[in-house]
Amino acid sequence: MGNTVKRLAILGSTGSIGQQTLEVVRALPHRFHIVGLAAGKNTGLLTKQINEFKPRFVYYQNAKAHLADAEYKFLSLEDIACHPQVDTVVIATSGKSGLSPTLAAIKAGKNVALANKESLVTAGEIITNEAKLSAARILPIDSEHSAIWQCLNGETQPAAQLILTASGGPFRHYSPPQLKGVTAKQALKHPTWQMGRKVTIHSMVEFIDGSIKAQLSYPDMRFPIQYALSYPERLSNPQLPRLDWSRINNLTFEQPNLDAFPCLKLAIEAGKKEGTYPAVLCAADEVAVELFLSERIKFTDIPNLIEQTLEQHQAIVHPTLEEIMAADAWARQKVLKLATGDNSC
Amino acid sequence: MGNTVKRLAILGSTGSIGQQTLEVVRALPHRFHIVGLAAGKNTGLLTKQINEFKPRFVYYQNAKAHLADAEYKFLSLEDIACHPQVDTVVIATSGKSGLSPTLAAIKAGKNVALANKESLVTAGEIITNEAKLSAARILPIDSEHSAIWQCLNGETQPAAQLILTASGGPFRHYSPPQLKGVTAKQALKHPTWQMGRKVTIHSMVEFIDGSIKAQLSYPDMRFPIQYALSYPERLSNPQLPRLDWSRINNLTFEQPNLDAFPCLKLAIEAGKKEGTYPAVLCAADEVAVELFLSERIKFTDIPNLIEQTLEQHQAIVHPTLEEIMAADAWARQKVLKLATGDNSC
Repeated sequence: MGNTVKRLAILGSTGSIGQQTLEVVRALPHRFHIVGLAAGKNTGLLTKQINEFKPRFVYYQNAKAHLADAEYKFLSLEDIACHPQVDTVVIATSGKSGLSPTLAAIKAGKNVALANKESLVTAGEIITNEAKLSAARILPIDSEHSAIWQCLNGETQPAAQLILTASGGPFRHYSPPQLKGVTAKQALKHPTWQMGRKVTIHSMVEFIDGSIKAQLSYPDMRFPIQYALSYPERLSNPQLPRLDWSRINNLTFEQPNLDAFPCLKLAIEAGKKEGTYPAVLCAADEVAVELFLSERIKFTDIPNLIEQTLEQHQAIVHPTLEEIMAADAWARQKVLKLATGDNSC
Repeated sequence: MGNTVKRLAILGSTGSIGQQTLEVVRALPHRFHIVGLAAGKNTGLLTKQINEFKPRFVYYQNAKAHLADAEYKFLSLEDIACHPQVDTVVIATSGKSGLSPTLAAIKAGKNVALANKESLVTAGEIITNEAKLSAARILPIDSEHSAIWQCLNGETQPAAQLILTASGGPFRHYSPPQLKGVTAKQALKHPTWQMGRKVTIHSMVEFIDGSIKAQLSYPDMRFPIQYALSYPERLSNPQLPRLDWSRINNLTFEQPNLDAFPCLKLAIEAGKKEGTYPAVLCAADEVAVELFLSERIKFTDIPNLIEQTLEQHQAIVHPTLEEIMAADAWARQKVLKLATGDNSC
């Protein structure tokens, strides 16, 4: 390891995770070098990023105009993901769009720093099998996944139990009528900002001997991002907040109420059923949330639409990628039809 | 590893840690086999243990009588500790008596499961240097040390900071006059029994990137004992209590008040000063606590006696074992003299 410089491609560089990844790179320029940047429609921000980081490879949805003053080569997401000059690919795109470049990077044996949970929920079996074949390493960026990964470090046996924690969000104590009235604006307020900088137990691992390890930090995505990039090393980053133990008094826990969180219940059920159910759950959730954010359905319609879609799904066990894609497409159509009262199909 | 049977010698088998080590062995008889048992004066319990576990080697203080019906060879603590038929030596004796067999075991390259903190406080530099030479492994049995060890598992870099936790004991919120009146009987009540079975964060490790790992379990010494014996494996032990997350609501923290805990302050200072100071701290503490338990001094006299002894000590840097022993002997005499008002020496 020593002081080698890792060459990074960030797919989804203008989103929240992409921007925070670039903050980590800015803080540790002697350890990380940007060779690829890819974004969707936010070409304004992407132009600024290109001017600052001067990547060799760039992708964006509207390929017509040349962005920025810097020179770069326009490549597809997949071509950036498996380019020989890239060591680690950061998958920071949201939803379904992360799946294809993730598979391309894994088949090329890259380190894949994965913030896109949907790829693993939808096609986890396929992705992990490909990673075994190519010896690609999947490095989790999400806080909970990173916590579990850190707790498993150095252990010789699998976990007996994983204990996931979640803030519960801003509507944790809402009554059913209150939930019905939740607006898109309320839902988009991120709870950590309301809570201030409080320490968070991200997740815990229970081992077969009953011992438990937990990982804690401030709720700041730059922690798991940086660890995924620096692994197996840890790097000192003066810009990351350090815990002030004199201000920490309390960590409180409560069991999730599955009646108040019907989507959590649906997700657990879909996970247990396996096959194409998780892909349908993800796709239905994505469309239902979009419908809610564009004010076409109520907040409480989200779980109803997902549940109905899952109920009507004809699942396939151990699906191929094509079968997963077909299930995904079917689920998206289904939610739209259910939402508009179209009962055909 | 597989299913090999580890051959254990327990020095201090009739004490609390010794008895709990035998409970672990009883629960996992296919993994651990007792080849040596050693105790002090409690020959009644030792006799029962010999009849049950039939060790080949035995030690006790009064060597005259043959205990139990079983056959065994009477050996010294040091000879048991370095016997070729012993894989792991559990040092469960208290105070100074653990030091010599610990060194014997380490020089013989044994795994040493160490519950005796005093050895490392007193002669840590000598013990760890010997362990490096012989490649002996020191496996911590105390909850806090085990927690730190588990959190460091698999990490490639040293910790940035260790965060030790402690229950604070039964007198945590006592006023100075209340502390003066504390009796031996009150002090001997162990706080965990009053608290019931609550989950405890034993210790935490902060890494250079600001991420923190913590280790949790019920406050039951069999957890660290078993991990020290089974390392690097973990073993499922149905007799160990499992955490019931539905009953865990809260973990609370507060900073230690060094004025209310003067011995903690003295220990931190002695640790920073190094040399023979930690040995003097340990020896003075051992004698002062004995004087308190035999009702010859007040509870609040303990820190005063330790402090005066440390103040009057002429320290030696990088002491030899002989110099440590001499400092220890001097400190014991000093505390007795200070307690009886004898101001000579």
